[in-house]
This record gives sequence, structure tokens and C-alpha cells, in this order.
Amino acid sequence: MWQLYQFPLCPFSRKVRLLLGEKGVGYELWRENPWEGRDEFFQLNPAGRTPVLHDPEKGITLVDSRAICEYFEETVERSPMINGTAANRAEIRRLVALFDENFFADVTAPLLEERMKKRLVYRAPPDSRLLRDAMRMANEHIDYMDYLIDTRPWLAGAQMSLADLAAAAQLSVADYLGGIDWSGHEQTRGWYSVFKSRPSFRPLLSERMDVIQPPAHYSDVNA
Amino acid sequence: MWQLYQFPLCPFSRKVRLLLGEKGVGYELWRENPWEGRDEFFQLNPAGRTPVLHDPEKGITLVDSRAICEYFEETVERSPMINGTAANRAEIRRLVALFDENFFADVTAPLLEERMKKRLVYRAPPDSRLLRDAMRMANEHIDYMDYLIDTRPWLAGAQMSLADLAAAAQLSVADYLGGIDWSGHEQTRGWYSVFKSRPSFRPLLSERMDVIQPPAHYSDVNA
Repeated sequence: MWQLYQFPLCPFSRKVRLLLGEKGVGYELWRENPWEGRDEFFQLNPAGRTPVLHDPEKGITLVDSRAICEYFEETVERSPMINGTAANRAEIRRLVALFDENFFADVTAPLLEERMKKRLVYRAPPDSRLLRDAMRMANEHIDYMDYLIDTRPWLAGAQMSLADLAAAAQLSVADYLGGIDWSGHEQTRGWYSVFKSRPSFRPLLSERMDVIQPPAHYSDVNA
Repeated sequence: MWQLYQFPLCPFSRKVRLLLGEKGVGYELWRENPWEGRDEFFQLNPAGRTPVLHDPEKGITLVDSRAICEYFEETVERSPMINGTAANRAEIRRLVALFDENFFADVTAPLLEERMKKRLVYRAPPDSRLLRDAMRMANEHIDYMDYLIDTRPWLAGAQMSLADLAAAAQLSVADYLGGIDWSGHEQTRGWYSVFKSRPSFRPLLSERMDVIQPPAHYSDVNA
């Protein structure tokens, strides 16, 4: 059985969990707070980041969320998520990078720092200027999502793909941390509410990160 | 003909150029300084980053260095760079992420900021503390490369792969900017000197970034 090292608000672990859910791959959750720098975890992944997927029986350790997703795309046929022509696949991977790198750096990372790590680790108040910047950047990113959803059924084209899973993963963590103002984003709100009711997403929405509570609308599939 | 938007010290453009060189794919260089925020460039890539590969005749635009590499791996059979079993391929992609993300954030990005952007854009002196930190982190990353090369012919296993290209791309930019102390790193130095004499790498080593000069050993294939 795969062991997934993660913490509930890790957006990259969420992307992997959405993919495993869609593909019907079973796994156990192993809680890992990477900021604690546990030696055994660094032995699994010298980069010290979640997610890590480890199968002790097969002796396989998979590291890096994109490498993990490509692995299951190659080994599990069900629900292809990097599909189509080479150009279609490049468009999916471009958007995955946009959410994993740009949305994360602009929005999710500062929200995690200010609203999760400062509360749980540093016991310090959040910096309200940095929070405002993150929320402003979230708004810009969702404007771009609105534009994509206006022109295509799913973010990368005609079918649901890893781009949608990557976007939903980042967006759901930002939403948990109160960083998303949904007003004026009807297209993305509609796309996201379809996602929230998928069986792959429901278990994530019911989890809580220690003492940190999400806003009331967070796990409401009709919101 | 593909048009590659890049600047000489962009490590991600270097990775793509090494791959295109190994695969024998032709392209034209188009100089782009992404920090200038040119509107036409943002229309090609809303993320505003190099490299971008554009073919105006075919109407294809490829964005994100990993998406670009996967595209050519899928469409050009020659010199496979993400090869082997699914587990081998996951190991290649793990190491690509380690160099693209961790080595870049710890070493290449601060060196580019302090020694390139401060000189060319901000006209400010570099912060010597940040430079020392970057060089210390470079040393730790190269220790890990020494360890890998001690146990395998190439970074990800028995064959040269995209992991080697990603590592050489980051390392060469850091070396250009004087951030690498090679003493005590015989394994990585030997691996890198093999790379420097490859036909895919030679054109990169002869280019210069405006007024910034590399150290004498930089383009010496025997150093």
C-alpha cells in the first residue's frame, strides 16, 4: 500500500490526492510537517518537501508532485489526465506549472506563511499587508481562470485534466485560509462547485488543519 | 523554424537549449529580458517568464521549460532524455525538479539577482551576505551531486538524462556568476567537464551576458 506523506493544507499533496482519487489508486495518509525537518523524512526526500509517496514493500519512493502525477499517468490507464496531442499535453503542463509555481508563489505560499505557519509554528500575528497582496494576486489569477473557462469547457481544453486538479488544489488551500473573494468570478465559481462535489475532492474538504478553521462556505458544495 | 525567447543567463532556457541540441532540433534565438515586461511577450506567456518557444508558421507556442522538454521528448525520438521504466522516469523527474526548484531558489536565483539584475537593472551593489549564503548552498547541492555521481554513471542512473541537462544548466549559470567553488568536488567537476565539451553545450559557453564577464575557467573545457 502506498504511504502518502503530507499535511492537510499542502496544495501539492492535494493535487496528488485528487489524481489518485480520480484514478482509483488506494493509499494511506501519513502526517508529515516538513518544517519540523525530521531526519527520517529527509532520508526519503533530501529536498524535505511534501508530498512523498512511499511503498515499503515494493521499495519505491516517489518525490515531487509533478513526477508523481506523471508516474501514475504512465502506469494507470483509468481517467487519463495528461491526454491528447503533444500540443494539448504541453498546454496541460503549462497550466500545471502556472498553478504550481505562479499561483503558489503569489497566493498560496504567503497565505500558508501568514495564516498557518505564523499561528502554529512562530506564534506571531500575520502581516496584514502581505495578506492583502496575496488576496489581490488571487483575484488576478482567478480573472485569468475566468477567461480560460469562458473559452473552454475545462481549463486546458475539452476534457478535465491535471491542469484542473492543480488549480483546484491551490484554490482550495487559499479558500480554506480565507484568501479568496469569490464575488465577480461566476465562471470560476461554477467550475469549482462542480469540482467540490466530486468523490475525489470530498474527503479533502472534510479534513481540518489542527486549530485552524476554514470559512463557513469552504466545504459547502452549494456555495 | 522555432523561435526561442531567452536571455543568455536564463538557466531554464539553457536546459531547453541543451535538450534541443542533443535532439538535433533547430531554432532561432530571440533575446527577451523578462524583467522588462514587454506586452508582446506577456501575450505569448501570461506568466511572463523565459523560455518560450514559438513557431509562427505552425501557430504553436510552448511555455514552461518542463512542458517544453516533455513535448520534444514525446515528438523527437532521437536521444531520449526521460527514458527507462516508470520508476526510472520518476527518478529523472525528481532530480529535474530538485535542480529547477531547489538549486535555483537556493543558488541561481540569488546569484542572478545580486550579480546580474542589480548591475544591469537596479544599478545597485550586490549584498555580500546573500552572495555568501548562495555559495554555501551551492556547496551543499554539489555535495549531493558528488554523492549521486559516486554511485551512478549519470545523475539519475545508467544513462545521460534530462536530470543531467537540468543540473548542468543551473550549474553553468552559477559558475558564470562566480558562485561555484570547485575545490573538493572532484566527482561533479569530472562530470561537468565531460558536459562542457559536448556540441550541445559549446555554443552556450561562448555567449556573454552584456557587460558581465565570467571567471577565466568558465568556458575552459579542461578546467
